[in-house]
Amino acid sequence: MSKIEARTLKGFRDYGPKEQGARQEMFRKIQSVFERFGFLPMSTPALEYKEILMGKYGDEEKLIYSFRDNGDRDVALRYDLTVPFARFMAQNENSLALPFKRYQIAPVWRAENTQKGRLREFYQCDVDVIGTESRLADAEVIACLAKTIEALGIVDYLVCINDRRNFEVLGEQLPEILRSIDKLNKLGLENVLAELRQKQISEDKVGLSREYMDGESVLKYNGELIDLRDQIISLGVAEKNIKIDQNIARGLDYYTSTVFEIVLTNNSEFGSIAGGGRYNDLLSTFSEKSMPAVGGSLGIDRLYEYLESTSQLPSTNGIEVMVLNMGAETWGDVLRVTSELRNANVNTDLYYYDAKLDKQFKYAESRGARLAIIIGEEEKAKGVVKIKNLQTREQVEVVEKDLLAAVRGA
Amino acid sequence: MSKIEARTLKGFRDYGPKEQGARQEMFRKIQSVFERFGFLPMSTPALEYKEILMGKYGDEEKLIYSFRDNGDRDVALRYDLTVPFARFMAQNENSLALPFKRYQIAPVWRAENTQKGRLREFYQCDVDVIGTESRLADAEVIACLAKTIEALGIVDYLVCINDRRNFEVLGEQLPEILRSIDKLNKLGLENVLAELRQKQISEDKVGLSREYMDGESVLKYNGELIDLRDQIISLGVAEKNIKIDQNIARGLDYYTSTVFEIVLTNNSEFGSIAGGGRYNDLLSTFSEKSMPAVGGSLGIDRLYEYLESTSQLPSTNGIEVMVLNMGAETWGDVLRVTSELRNANVNTDLYYYDAKLDKQFKYAESRGARLAIIIGEEEKAKGVVKIKNLQTREQVEVVEKDLLAAVRGA
Repeated sequence: MSKIEARTLKGFRDYGPKEQGARQEMFRKIQSVFERFGFLPMSTPALEYKEILMGKYGDEEKLIYSFRDNGDRDVALRYDLTVPFARFMAQNENSLALPFKRYQIAPVWRAENTQKGRLREFYQCDVDVIGTESRLADAEVIACLAKTIEALGIVDYLVCINDRRNFEVLGEQLPEILRSIDKLNKLGLENVLAELRQKQISEDKVGLSREYMDGESVLKYNGELIDLRDQIISLGVAEKNIKIDQNIARGLDYYTSTVFEIVLTNNSEFGSIAGGGRYNDLLSTFSEKSMPAVGGSLGIDRLYEYLESTSQLPSTNGIEVMVLNMGAETWGDVLRVTSELRNANVNTDLYYYDAKLDKQFKYAESRGARLAIIIGEEEKAKGVVKIKNLQTREQVEVVEKDLLAAVRGA
Repeated sequence: MSKIEARTLKGFRDYGPKEQGARQEMFRKIQSVFERFGFLPMSTPALEYKEILMGKYGDEEKLIYSFRDNGDRDVALRYDLTVPFARFMAQNENSLALPFKRYQIAPVWRAENTQKGRLREFYQCDVDVIGTESRLADAEVIACLAKTIEALGIVDYLVCINDRRNFEVLGEQLPEILRSIDKLNKLGLENVLAELRQKQISEDKVGLSREYMDGESVLKYNGELIDLRDQIISLGVAEKNIKIDQNIARGLDYYTSTVFEIVLTNNSEFGSIAGGGRYNDLLSTFSEKSMPAVGGSLGIDRLYEYLESTSQLPSTNGIEVMVLNMGAETWGDVLRVTSELRNANVNTDLYYYDAKLDKQFKYAESRGARLAIIIGEEEKAKGVVKIKNLQTREQVEVVEKDLLAAVRGA
């Protein structure tokens, strides 16, 4: 039989036990902060009607994975969690109490250029508040994401806030211009101006754009931004971690006023690790009702990379105890002890074969077990079991009824 | 602007906060038992090269979602978690210590007939042991899934085990015949026999098949099955919950010996809620090395439906406290108290507007909050805050420094 080559698609990757364990622990922490801020969980499907996603993402739209399914429907893999959520709200607008606060942690798919090291499947962690114009909701979304980043052990971060309406004078070509201004950190001022000219933007608007990027303009919505900053501070974020930044534009079309990004201050190469804003018109593409909304998204994959590089990945439970065997006549004891430990909520593994103890110890270590338990003939005769700490190499003997206490204390 | 109709695809669904909260709690419990049994987490992508999935699922293969991506690659959404895991093992066979035990909890996609109420996107919770022929690994997989079902509060279940080699005498047409025998519970004996005849299976094999389904044959591998049952019992499953059942065949092509299903005994309409078996040859489709393997899968969606019908869905954290306001001059206090509670890990929400208390209470209830906190002028003058239990309607006043203790004790 000819073999199929075992490989993953470009931009897609597996996560082995160590990586996935750390990721799950990150998700758990993120979820815990989201819930602390009063956001409740929700889930939407991976696949949507293609038309639901179209016309929302500007020129990024070409990165959507879409195809025709067996039932001749044009379908697409979700590109973010915001548009499906807007679709959900439009479908359920009469049955939900507003404001509605939800979080969702799920993968999204984008056919990105993988040469930049970008993944095509990555997780987003989103919080959104729908059904209120209150700026306090904007503050909550931003404060919640900032506190989540703190919960992951990161202290050197900066929340950059702006109001898209500050760019209103740029007129009809606003979306095109904002997409270029959004690249300021990546490309630098001169290259952004060159790109604007390439896009045939008029010279007076290129001039206005330069003033924004230079920080020379007086922002029309500066007062609102100061109020927003103060509310974010009231919700527990330190003043040093917030900045009004008139260059934040965000690439997506659907934002209407508040926009924000969170960046790492000691490591600018990582770019923004969270972002979002207010999108008051998105729901009106699905519904006759208008429904104001604000939300933000945290990217887990970049954060993982950063925490790994600073040795700050959260530790995981893993395997606590590996029960070794001393041959066929000890199997009954091995299974009994294994079951007892598991019943007491101890993560316990066992070695499946009759093999030399050396080999069994090696396996226990490769699985990351903290303790090994040995029940041999000698121990049985004495009515004890042996516990070996695989890190310190210390070994103790305890009577079997004290095993659980010893494992917990060891 | 013309509206896009807000709708989900057939066979796909949203989960609102209550449903998703319960599901996440189920995942947490499942994960905890999986880890107790020494399985470690892993993750593979949603999309694979199509060729990876082909030739593994028999006539179910037509249900795979596949398409050509922007880079002209034939890709497919994963159909189960087993085949991608086999692909992962083949890619990493030299770097992983064997036996390798992993779990994965993730959605899979199948273009099922939705008229039978089946979802096209559903979660599987899988445990697998790769790299050992030991029957103890089969016992571990089965015991782990049984204990998981118990952890979800289900006591009336039955593990049905069989060995596919018992059907060996059926010869070359075995896969076709097994797929029909697999439908015995759904179709009944006569209909399965009719289907076999429709498939042009020879009369002597139809006769043999009838003997199996009637339970008349002596099973060649009965001794092994009794040993397996005893090991499952040693690992903590009660004898009354296990049965050797010669009609269990499983529909997928890749099983080689042990096969099993877990069913609810007081509710046969729910069909099997878990299943799996040994698949010693699957990895050899990707690798020159042969690598024995055994695994099983728990379906969360049917279990959810069952637990809902018996009012056994796990309760979730939700919102503990809603902080209400008494107008503009109380905002400072509202934000301060909200932040203090959140910093102490209390899931806390607040009302965004200056509104009548009645309206605020109603909102607090609709969000499922347990307590409401009121800080009005009167309370402030007295130096207290008011706590109202929204279930019992009891109300107490406490000084602010005792608030946290009161919330935790209330």
